[in-house]
Amino acid sequence: MSLDDVLARIDTDLPAAMERLMDLLRIQSISTDPAFKSDCDKAADWLVSDLNSMGITAEKRPTPGHPMVVGHVGQDLGDDVPHVLFYGHYDVQPVDPLNLWNTPPFEPQIEDTPNGQVIRGRGASDDKGQLMTFVEACRAWKEVHGSLPCRITFFFEGEEESGSPSLIPFMQDNADELKADLALICDTSMVSRGVPSIASQLRGMLKDEFTITGPRIDLHSGHYGGPGLNPLREMSKIIASFHDEDTGAVTVDGFYEGVHEVSAEQLRQWQNCGFDEAEYLNSVGYSQPHGEKAYSTLEQQWARPTLEINGLWGGYNGAGSKTVIPSEAHCKITCRLVGDMDPDALRDKIRAHVQQRLSPDATVTWDNDLEGSPAPVMNIARPEFEAARGALSDEWDREAVFTGMGGSIPIAGFFKSVLDMDAMLVGYANDDDAIHSPNEKYDVKSFHKGIRSWARILDALTRT
Amino acid sequence: MSLDDVLARIDTDLPAAMERLMDLLRIQSISTDPAFKSDCDKAADWLVSDLNSMGITAEKRPTPGHPMVVGHVGQDLGDDVPHVLFYGHYDVQPVDPLNLWNTPPFEPQIEDTPNGQVIRGRGASDDKGQLMTFVEACRAWKEVHGSLPCRITFFFEGEEESGSPSLIPFMQDNADELKADLALICDTSMVSRGVPSIASQLRGMLKDEFTITGPRIDLHSGHYGGPGLNPLREMSKIIASFHDEDTGAVTVDGFYEGVHEVSAEQLRQWQNCGFDEAEYLNSVGYSQPHGEKAYSTLEQQWARPTLEINGLWGGYNGAGSKTVIPSEAHCKITCRLVGDMDPDALRDKIRAHVQQRLSPDATVTWDNDLEGSPAPVMNIARPEFEAARGALSDEWDREAVFTGMGGSIPIAGFFKSVLDMDAMLVGYANDDDAIHSPNEKYDVKSFHKGIRSWARILDALTRT
Repeated sequence: MSLDDVLARIDTDLPAAMERLMDLLRIQSISTDPAFKSDCDKAADWLVSDLNSMGITAEKRPTPGHPMVVGHVGQDLGDDVPHVLFYGHYDVQPVDPLNLWNTPPFEPQIEDTPNGQVIRGRGASDDKGQLMTFVEACRAWKEVHGSLPCRITFFFEGEEESGSPSLIPFMQDNADELKADLALICDTSMVSRGVPSIASQLRGMLKDEFTITGPRIDLHSGHYGGPGLNPLREMSKIIASFHDEDTGAVTVDGFYEGVHEVSAEQLRQWQNCGFDEAEYLNSVGYSQPHGEKAYSTLEQQWARPTLEINGLWGGYNGAGSKTVIPSEAHCKITCRLVGDMDPDALRDKIRAHVQQRLSPDATVTWDNDLEGSPAPVMNIARPEFEAARGALSDEWDREAVFTGMGGSIPIAGFFKSVLDMDAMLVGYANDDDAIHSPNEKYDVKSFHKGIRSWARILDALTRT
Repeated sequence: MSLDDVLARIDTDLPAAMERLMDLLRIQSISTDPAFKSDCDKAADWLVSDLNSMGITAEKRPTPGHPMVVGHVGQDLGDDVPHVLFYGHYDVQPVDPLNLWNTPPFEPQIEDTPNGQVIRGRGASDDKGQLMTFVEACRAWKEVHGSLPCRITFFFEGEEESGSPSLIPFMQDNADELKADLALICDTSMVSRGVPSIASQLRGMLKDEFTITGPRIDLHSGHYGGPGLNPLREMSKIIASFHDEDTGAVTVDGFYEGVHEVSAEQLRQWQNCGFDEAEYLNSVGYSQPHGEKAYSTLEQQWARPTLEINGLWGGYNGAGSKTVIPSEAHCKITCRLVGDMDPDALRDKIRAHVQQRLSPDATVTWDNDLEGSPAPVMNIARPEFEAARGALSDEWDREAVFTGMGGSIPIAGFFKSVLDMDAMLVGYANDDDAIHSPNEKYDVKSFHKGIRSWARILDALTRT
């Protein structure tokens, strides 16, 4: 079956594909707000209907929240062709503050910008536009060849922007139906404009919270200032001890166990990925990176673990002053985990670090309800990853890069933990897409070349 | 004129004096609550009437808040006798939580306790009981000798428990009338039970507040965790740098300028003042003092300056976790000042300390509206102090002590700054009097020997 014919069909059909996307964007599928429940339902119906129109079996499946959409195509191709699951979400973020939008969020428009045409509207990038790149690629394959090159399971969620409460139960209840060789997820960005990216390195998470108690009660800073142990000072001392001022490294004993150095090939890709370090730093007010000095900014963000203070409080914070030595100081921390770092072991190490540094008369208590998750493993040794990288490089005329991501994408971990299925994250969004913000947009180039990219990837997967 | 006759009269009259105090305690003169405005007025009237009944000129003087009471006696004695002003306050703290009182707060009672009889009720110790020790001493002198040994100005305030808003304007407007050789203030405690005390060393205060800003906006700890400068860590580093872990001393350059070592004689008195270090520390959960290791607990509390963190906050402090690197961290500090420490110079030193330690990309802003006040100077070289110490030692059969106080008593400073008048602080309260708390009490022994003490002090002052 000829890929060239499929790509040509995609080019010809682009205006119609944009119309279909704008149709979907007009549906106000804000999942977090109950007022838009029927709109979420409508978006699910729209997708079922669109898949059906291509001759793909698809159904809306109820959940306690918004429905899932599950579709299947290519079962007749037999077990010799690859079987992939494609995941996307049809729900969108709320649109407030509405007054900051230049056009109505649910009246999508095509606009010319210095970076080319964009489709403006809520969900254009996150995730309706990205989702539709895959659907349109499938449509082109179907229209040109009457069938797809792979078996495909479609899996669309309507609760991604509101915490995915139904996702894991639904995956568990429908495990047999959803299981495939590999999950494809289209909800990520390119590392920089025009540089095709496969997110292959994500970070895990450890959360903890602790309270340091000094005196039994809040004290008068006149009566006890001097002899009194102040838990705010104690807390500051502990927090300051977490990092080495000179190297920027975390000082917790054994913190870096399970951290692997980035391979030379990976580093080479990152050095050439077009990441604009100055822009990344300057845009938020930094003139330089502030992490581990032995590592580049990208490594600090993608490949190195962190111990971060997310909240710190104690004593008086109202207007004026209060002469108090408070009884308690509180701190919330999160760690970003990489490689094989074990969140449970790490929690113990951090707690021991704090315990060992406490002054006499200070005590620490820990919140026991906070979870941890290891770094999701992207199995880039699988041949599908290199195949997809080749396909993306061909389409964008630029070497595709296995990038890292500083954050966590839970769905990738769920496919592994619930369905024992590896996932591959490919997305065409740009950092300036304003997802979750007013005036969200998706580049027409991302949409067009995204569709072509998936067409190529599906083709390439048949040769792995 | 015989002191012995006066003391004998005080002993005989004690039951009547206690009845008078209980009369005054029945008046619900809570100054902070407008609902008790007429009660405050009634307490002022009661005092005017009581002074008048002894043949002392006294008037209620209006202010924008609760009235002052000003009285005079002994003008006919001429300039050869000392002229003292006596200050006390007739207003009391609110009584909530009412359910924690074992008896109604404004129905005073005499109770037997393991430490002897007490007068139980709101204001018994703070400050109606203490105030009346002086009034009763004057009454005894008047009744026995027809006159007092000194010229006396009485100055009673009704807003001490609600911030004294009218005090300074009233002192300024009536400076000529209020000016005397020395102010006597009876609103302090004895350093330990049965140890007569003159508070001769108080601490001043410097307040400041600062914000450290890192990134321009709150950041996602996945996207920026690693390269991102976290102001909470920056703040902790700064706070941790304020003290030397080994010595407990403040590390701010020049912090101790103007601090004087305590004299050997003073130290001797303190070592023998009956201060129960273990009780002081254990009662709030400390097993040891945590201040400057080179100084005793009492010196840390009375004679050494502090830099204390009273409030610290930034980032997320709600339930659960938030993966944020906040833009700002905030801190409130107060310093307790001793000796000749200059609050303005000290503020500059602290600000320089912070500025010098900031990382690149971190900035600090300061609150400019917070005041400072130097340590009030108690002029214990004046002969009246040694005279009073002798009188107190005679009465309590125990060497009286020039003590320190960790806190600040603003009125002492006001007599100096507004009226250029030294003040002497003598009080008979005990630390277990529960002032400001439910079940406030005043030991009958404090009341009785307090009256006798003032009778002796007035006598002793005539020989200075």
